[in-house]
Amino acid sequence: MNYPMIIYIVGWIFGIEAALMSPSLIVALIYRERSGWAFVVSIALCLAIAFLCARKRPANKVFYTREGFVTVALSWICMSLMGALPFVFSGTIPNMVDALFETVSGFTTTGASILPAVEGLPNCVLFWRSFTHWIGGMGVLVFLLCLLPMTGSGYHMSLMKAESPGPSVSKLVPTVRDTAKILYGIYLFLTVLEIVFLLIGRMPLFDALTTAFGTAGTGGFGIKNDSIGGYSSYLQSVITIFMIMFGVNFNVYFYLLMKKPRQAFECEEARWYLAIIAVATAIIAFCIRGFYPSLREAFHHAFFQVGSIITTTGFATADFNLWPNVPKTILVMLMFVGACAGSTGGGIKVSRFILLLRTISREMFELLHPNGVRKIKLEGHAVDHNTMKAVNVYLIAYVMIFAFSVLLIAFDDYDLVTNFTAVAATFNNIGPGLELVGPTANFSLYSSGAKLVLIFDMLAGRLEIFPLLLLFVRDTWRKF
Amino acid sequence: MNYPMIIYIVGWIFGIEAALMSPSLIVALIYRERSGWAFVVSIALCLAIAFLCARKRPANKVFYTREGFVTVALSWICMSLMGALPFVFSGTIPNMVDALFETVSGFTTTGASILPAVEGLPNCVLFWRSFTHWIGGMGVLVFLLCLLPMTGSGYHMSLMKAESPGPSVSKLVPTVRDTAKILYGIYLFLTVLEIVFLLIGRMPLFDALTTAFGTAGTGGFGIKNDSIGGYSSYLQSVITIFMIMFGVNFNVYFYLLMKKPRQAFECEEARWYLAIIAVATAIIAFCIRGFYPSLREAFHHAFFQVGSIITTTGFATADFNLWPNVPKTILVMLMFVGACAGSTGGGIKVSRFILLLRTISREMFELLHPNGVRKIKLEGHAVDHNTMKAVNVYLIAYVMIFAFSVLLIAFDDYDLVTNFTAVAATFNNIGPGLELVGPTANFSLYSSGAKLVLIFDMLAGRLEIFPLLLLFVRDTWRKF
Repeated sequence: MNYPMIIYIVGWIFGIEAALMSPSLIVALIYRERSGWAFVVSIALCLAIAFLCARKRPANKVFYTREGFVTVALSWICMSLMGALPFVFSGTIPNMVDALFETVSGFTTTGASILPAVEGLPNCVLFWRSFTHWIGGMGVLVFLLCLLPMTGSGYHMSLMKAESPGPSVSKLVPTVRDTAKILYGIYLFLTVLEIVFLLIGRMPLFDALTTAFGTAGTGGFGIKNDSIGGYSSYLQSVITIFMIMFGVNFNVYFYLLMKKPRQAFECEEARWYLAIIAVATAIIAFCIRGFYPSLREAFHHAFFQVGSIITTTGFATADFNLWPNVPKTILVMLMFVGACAGSTGGGIKVSRFILLLRTISREMFELLHPNGVRKIKLEGHAVDHNTMKAVNVYLIAYVMIFAFSVLLIAFDDYDLVTNFTAVAATFNNIGPGLELVGPTANFSLYSSGAKLVLIFDMLAGRLEIFPLLLLFVRDTWRKF
Repeated sequence: MNYPMIIYIVGWIFGIEAALMSPSLIVALIYRERSGWAFVVSIALCLAIAFLCARKRPANKVFYTREGFVTVALSWICMSLMGALPFVFSGTIPNMVDALFETVSGFTTTGASILPAVEGLPNCVLFWRSFTHWIGGMGVLVFLLCLLPMTGSGYHMSLMKAESPGPSVSKLVPTVRDTAKILYGIYLFLTVLEIVFLLIGRMPLFDALTTAFGTAGTGGFGIKNDSIGGYSSYLQSVITIFMIMFGVNFNVYFYLLMKKPRQAFECEEARWYLAIIAVATAIIAFCIRGFYPSLREAFHHAFFQVGSIITTTGFATADFNLWPNVPKTILVMLMFVGACAGSTGGGIKVSRFILLLRTISREMFELLHPNGVRKIKLEGHAVDHNTMKAVNVYLIAYVMIFAFSVLLIAFDDYDLVTNFTAVAATFNNIGPGLELVGPTANFSLYSSGAKLVLIFDMLAGRLEIFPLLLLFVRDTWRKF
């Protein structure tokens, strides 16, 4: 294990975090809030550690997948620990575990909160809370790749593989660094676009910024106690559309950018994703038609909630915990499906489901034709053996960690649905679950031990399990 | 597809079923019950169909895995349809879907019932109901193998592979036919042994027979409304021990029979299985100690319920639906774990879990050592690629069918825990779930549509998915 290099990169992450905290400081200055001091102290701490760790570039450039995984996992943990400090220092969340929960929930774009109410919080804290979503959505290591001028593509690829969601990573352009720049460009452009549309609907600037951060990262932290419920129907619709857009594989936008609309429209994953949204919305709208004055309104809320859950954002305009069982069951299923690979959304990802379903149909084919050979295809290309293996192992690890987490938090003695959906909502980076952790409730009921389990789940969900799991293997820390 | 051969074998199954119904007719004669006529008519029907289908042995002996899978699936469906007739004809379960549910639940050794009370039923019907467990426990096609003098081991192996539970089939002795005979011998011996122990505890003969059938097949149908709760503590302990014994891989008994105790005690799967039982019992006993007068009694009930659920039997001495959340969560987990491969128990099977966990640890190893190679081992032997592939595909299909079933039965609008555990209890061939389908409740609340879904799940669980799934593929019915 190349320790000096890992420490060097993590050091850089601290530096970047200091930079990313400064907008919140500016917000504090604008609103003349005393909580601004919390950011001053946090930024100073970040810079001090960054200076210590990243003073000198290490000579040893050896960097394998294992180094990439460990670096990404450690970076996310350090980032979360530092990111929690403003909450603690400002006194808004004095308990460190709670503050860590909130920060991890932010960076992993989960949006699960331990705060019963957010409307009384200082604006700078609210801004930081929402901004963590925007940072975590596209990933920090990928951002670092745009900045750090380093040679060796093995190094770039290992970091990108570990941090980017989905079964496989594709470079849009020959170098990883340029790919990262393009992705961040699209991300920034779409965010600004949403802000503009929100401002047109007369949303105040501060609300528009924080809401756009929450949508872009598919996070879900709001700045109102009723999430998005209080905004106009137009604003809710804008948010719905943008949530769904941020859940689409960014390759689609890249193709549009390259003026290749045919390739964009032929993206298999995006088409499945939109089809699932359409079918789920239709069924749910039909089931909840009695709850709303008109079918149009039932459709509006069904569409918003489906978009919010499948993209793993977690905004809410309605308390779906009160809906009948069919809509609730569909929403729980969508929690697992998740958004497209290569988007900012979480969950298992649509492309993994396509591949898993095709594995079943290949098995049937091989049972019927003992000598037949069939390749599994996605987006028109045969999927290589290693990707298929990774998808299978991912499902196995996913199921095991899921079950084990539900068992561990059961010791807090809440009901099965609460525990099951609490894990589903955190592991898939969604936010709200059902029953005691439903859209109008929060996660403060859990003990510190259970919160640590859920923090693990959020990180494991965002980093797709293995980077985090590696930290717990003794072999990882051996000298190679 | 070799249709003549499939029809011939299914014809034989009808004949065997006629023979297997006769003990119930004898019971009717002994107790002078009018319901005996239902069996006379059913037996006559079975024989007529058997005569039509199995008159002449087909010339075409081609028999591949696909023929084996289809034959097994069709045999089980036909057997269940005919097995339901005595319930309908005797008027004890007039509705055909309900009768089919009860029969499938019997043959698949699930033990889920749609009957609110069983104590008023005629003895011959109760006997048939419990006897279906004993028949289904070891499998009918395997039984047929002992009888039918046929050449061609491909034929034997295909049937055994399709009907026997577990990731791979091992022949204990060179021929499949002798293996089947040994397995049935062990099965019969253990059943008789249990009957003797139950009679020693002064259980009436009729109760001892039906209870032993339910235990041996790991089924769970009882002849009392309170399942096993009314019997003495000694009898409950005997049943606990035998449930757990029938959940052990039968290879262990074979080794003991061959006087190779070392090999028997080294069976990795059985050791994990017993370890899981011990740990689960200890935790549950600790959690429910307040519910019972003594820790000894809490342990007694914890042990019984753990044994009943992990072996997928489904007998009950206590309403675990009223227990705290940790015991309930553990029991739900055990529902999925299931018993050992090569036993009469259902569920995913301990050996599959061992293999799945080792897949994760191999993945970690390969991440850390890019050029390292590690074989997955079980029982000291490297597991071949095809078995690993089958285990992975099994998990995928399992998860998909599970989720889809929960979604389908949600349309009956019961709560999530009821639906989730209803599918868990049927798909894993256990019997009782939680809430509305808990140990003191039954499955009569569901609509006919939902019951058909659960019938599918029971069959899919018993036959381990793919034989049943193949029936729904159009390619299967094409001429090859």
